[in-house]
Amino acid sequence: MRVLGIDPGLRNLGWGVIEVSGSRLSHLGNGICRSGDGTLAARLLKLHDQLSDVIARFVPEEAAVEQTFVNKDGAGTLKLGQARGVALLVAARAGLEIGEYAPNQVKKTVVGVGHAQKEQIAHMVRLQLPGVDLAGPDAADALAVAICHAHHARGRRLRAAAGIGA
Amino acid sequence: MRVLGIDPGLRNLGWGVIEVSGSRLSHLGNGICRSGDGTLAARLLKLHDQLSDVIARFVPEEAAVEQTFVNKDGAGTLKLGQARGVALLVAARAGLEIGEYAPNQVKKTVVGVGHAQKEQIAHMVRLQLPGVDLAGPDAADALAVAICHAHHARGRRLRAAAGIGA
Repeated sequence: MRVLGIDPGLRNLGWGVIEVSGSRLSHLGNGICRSGDGTLAARLLKLHDQLSDVIARFVPEEAAVEQTFVNKDGAGTLKLGQARGVALLVAARAGLEIGEYAPNQVKKTVVGVGHAQKEQIAHMVRLQLPGVDLAGPDAADALAVAICHAHHARGRRLRAAAGIGA
Repeated sequence: MRVLGIDPGLRNLGWGVIEVSGSRLSHLGNGICRSGDGTLAARLLKLHDQLSDVIARFVPEEAAVEQTFVNKDGAGTLKLGQARGVALLVAARAGLEIGEYAPNQVKKTVVGVGHAQKEQIAHMVRLQLPGVDLAGPDAADALAVAICHAHHARGRRLRAAAGIGA
């Protein structure tokens, strides 16, 4: 199973693709979609096109998208929401199964604690995907979301195979 | 010139299309895209598909999208942002020129004051587009954004023709 992890953002949208077979994870690719300058619509279109290219190149079956942290900065939340809407739409149009994970859940799964720093996340991603070359913190976060999804999906499958409800 | 007005929302996304020739406006269609129940990604996909159908049916050249009011409700702002991102993307992918207008600007242009009520907006939309049958308040708002765009675009064109900067 191939999983595309996405860390949404309007300026930089991180992505990472991993291959999952049983409990083994391997890294296929990671990077950052950049919206550059221009009108909001043009920037969202750029994110759409770049993320569509990633899906066409790696052909993932599932996507994992980080849930946005809602804070007091309404304008920031709105920007993030617009980018996140485009990311979810691109994945849905490609027919991918989509999981959403809160930042705390991702950190807990990948690092073991819910309040991990950026550097710790990158470190654990490198440990779990040996040889990975990270394009940046947003790409590391995207791979972390993909790893989180792989663990949760594996748990769901094992429980289903054993006839135990989720 | 055909203008598609959009009043973004995750549950109900209002749309309205008008034809503009000189200072004459006429109504072509209006309605509401509904995302129904389901996952967020599935709902955004529904909005995408319905709005794409509207564009395919009316073939507008320009789009006018209402700017989202950012308030203290972060979760609400995020939902609206996601729907708005999809609306802008659909218009951009279709190659439409896109204008964005703040709610106050729309009200000032269509009603004459910046603090108009929903019912006043619907009334002025009916006055300016005789015979229009409104699908609901969101569709009335969408037509109001399209009317606002028509007025501003006309002003820009007249100033350009007279060699006066915007």
